[in-house]
Amino acid sequence: MIDFSTIQFVDIIEFIGTFAFAISGIRLASAKKFDLFGAFVVGLVTAVGGATLRDLLFGVIPFWMDNSIYLWCTLFALVFVMIFHNYLIHLHNTFFAFDSIGLALFVVVGAEKALNLGFDPWVAVAMGTITGSVGGVIRDVLINEIPLIFRKEIYALACVIGGIVFVTLCKYTTLNLVIIEITSATVVIIVRYLAVKYQLSLPILKGEHKKKLPH
Amino acid sequence: MIDFSTIQFVDIIEFIGTFAFAISGIRLASAKKFDLFGAFVVGLVTAVGGATLRDLLFGVIPFWMDNSIYLWCTLFALVFVMIFHNYLIHLHNTFFAFDSIGLALFVVVGAEKALNLGFDPWVAVAMGTITGSVGGVIRDVLINEIPLIFRKEIYALACVIGGIVFVTLCKYTTLNLVIIEITSATVVIIVRYLAVKYQLSLPILKGEHKKKLPH
Amino acid sequence: MIDFSTIQFVDIIEFIGTFAFAISGIRLASAKKFDLFGAFVVGLVTAVGGATLRDLLFGVIPFWMDNSIYLWCTLFALVFVMIFHNYLIHLHNTFFAFDSIGLALFVVVGAEKALNLGFDPWVAVAMGTITGSVGGVIRDVLINEIPLIFRKEIYALACVIGGIVFVTLCKYTTLNLVIIEITSATVVIIVRYLAVKYQLSLPILKGEHKKKLPH
Repeated sequence: MIDFSTIQFVDIIEFIGTFAFAISGIRLASAKKFDLFGAFVVGLVTAVGGATLRDLLFGVIPFWMDNSIYLWCTLFALVFVMIFHNYLIHLHNTFFAFDSIGLALFVVVGAEKALNLGFDPWVAVAMGTITGSVGGVIRDVLINEIPLIFRKEIYALACVIGGIVFVTLCKYTTLNLVIIEITSATVVIIVRYLAVKYQLSLPILKGEHKKKLPH
Repeated sequence: MIDFSTIQFVDIIEFIGTFAFAISGIRLASAKKFDLFGAFVVGLVTAVGGATLRDLLFGVIPFWMDNSIYLWCTLFALVFVMIFHNYLIHLHNTFFAFDSIGLALFVVVGAEKALNLGFDPWVAVAMGTITGSVGGVIRDVLINEIPLIFRKEIYALACVIGGIVFVTLCKYTTLNLVIIEITSATVVIIVRYLAVKYQLSLPILKGEHKKKLPH
Repeated sequence: MIDFSTIQFVDIIEFIGTFAFAISGIRLASAKKFDLFGAFVVGLVTAVGGATLRDLLFGVIPFWMDNSIYLWCTLFALVFVMIFHNYLIHLHNTFFAFDSIGLALFVVVGAEKALNLGFDPWVAVAMGTITGSVGGVIRDVLINEIPLIFRKEIYALACVIGGIVFVTLCKYTTLNLVIIEITSATVVIIVRYLAVKYQLSLPILKGEHKKKLPH
C-alpha cells in the first residue's frame, strides 16, 4: 500500500518528529539541571514514550527495539542542544513547526497501527492520541511537574481531532491511504497552529471550594 | 459459571465502580486547575489504570480496548462533575459507598482473572490489589502528589485482605463462585468502612533522623 | 550453560541485590512518612520495577510472578529496617556494597535475557541499563522527587558500560558465559565505586537562561 518513495519520506518526517520531541525533553531536563545522561533519557522518553505505551497496550514489541535510529536521533538532539544552547530560543518557530509535524505523524501512525491490528475506530483515535501525547506526559512526570498537556494547551485535542479525521476517512471514503494520512496530519498541524496563535484552550473544570477531597 | 442475570448485575456494579473512580480522579484534577481534557484523562486513568497494569502484566490486551463503555462512563462522570460541582460535597457518603463498591469489585475481578489464567494464589492477591489501587496511584502521580494510598488509608490493606479471602475460599471450599465473589467483595467493603469509621491506619515507618540517604 | 552450583550462587546474589534495592526504597519511603504498606510497595517496586519494565518490553510475563521470593525478600527488608532503623546509618558501606552487587547482577541478567531472546546488542545494553536503573526511577516518582539518577550519580553510566562489556565479550570472545558475567558485573561495581569515591559525575547540561520553554 506504501511504495518505497513514501517510506523514505515518512522516515524523514519521523526523524524530524523524534528530533523535535527529544529536543523538547532535553531542554526541559536542562532547565532542571539534569546531567547529560538524564537529559538524554528524558529526551528519548519524550520521543518514544507514547509509541512505547501504545505498543505495550497492543501487546507487540515496542517499535524502537527494532531500530537504533531513535537512540541516535536523541543523541544528535543532545549534541545539538549542547552546541547551540544559546541560540535555541531564536529557533522557537522552527522547533514549533518540527514538533507539530512530529505530533501529526505520531497521531497518524498510532491510529493506523490500531486499525491494521483490527481494533475499533475509537481505539484508533485513543492510540493516535496516546502516541502523540504520552511521551510529553512521562517527560513531565520525570521532571516532577504536572503534565503541561493537562493544563495549558489543546495539544491533546489536536490529536483527538486528527485521529477522528483519519478513522472517518479510512472508514467512509475510498481515498488513497497516503492522501488520508496527509489530510489527517495536516488537520493536526492546523488545529495546533490555530490553538497556539489564538491562544485557544479548553475551559478549566470548576473547583469545589473544598480543601479535603475523598480518596 | 456465571449466568446472564449475573453478568448484568456485574456490569452495573462495574459501571458504578468506574464512575466512582473516575469522579475521584476528576475532582482531584479539578482542584489542580486541570482543563476538561486533563480532568477526563485523569478520571479515565484512575478508573482503568489498575486493571490496565494488571492486563499488561498478564500479557493480555487491556480490557477497556474491547469496549468503549469505560470512556463513556468517564465522560458521564465529567459531565456530572461539571453540572453538580457545587453539590458534590453533599454526596460525600454516596461517593464513598460507590467507591468502596467499585474497589471491592475490582479486587475480586483482578484476583479471579489471575486464578483463571493459572497463576499462584499469591499472584491473585497481588493482582486484586493492583487492580484496586494502582489507578489511584497513577492519578496521584499525574497530579504531582505523593500517592495517598501510601500514607493515609488502609485502602490497600482492604484489597489484600479481600484478595486473601477470595483465593482462600476458591482453594479450600466448594462454594459457588458467585457466593465467593460476594463474600470477598463484602469483606473489602467492611474493612474499608471500619478503617475510615475508626480512622484506623497502618503505623508509619520510623525515620532515621538522617537527611541524606544513599541511592 | 549454567550448572546447579552457579544457579545457587546467582540466587544468593539476586537475593542480596533485591534486599539492597528494597532497603533503599523503604528508607526513602520512611523519610517521607509513608506507612508500612507504602514502604513495602516502594521497596518492592525499587527492587523489581526495572526488571518488570524490561519483561513488559520483551512481551514476557514479569519474572517475579513466577516466584514469591521477591515479596518475601522485600518483607524481610521492611522488618530489617523496622528493627534496625537506628543502626542503618552505620551500615552505609554495607548497603553500598550490596546495592552495587545487586546493580551489577541486574545489568548482567537484563543484558543476557535480551541476547537470549535474539535482540540486537544495543538492545541488550539498553535492557541491562533499564533493569538496573528503572526501579530507582519509579521509586523516586512515587516519593515525588526528581529521579536521583538524572542528576547526581553516574549510576546509569555504570550500567551502560557494564552492558557494553557484556555484549562485547559475548560477541567477540569464546569465553565461558560465567566468566563473561563475572567480568561484566565486576566492571559495573568498579565504575560505580570509582565514581562515588572520586565524586565523578557527568556534566550538567547548560541551561538557556530562559523561563518559558516551548512544549
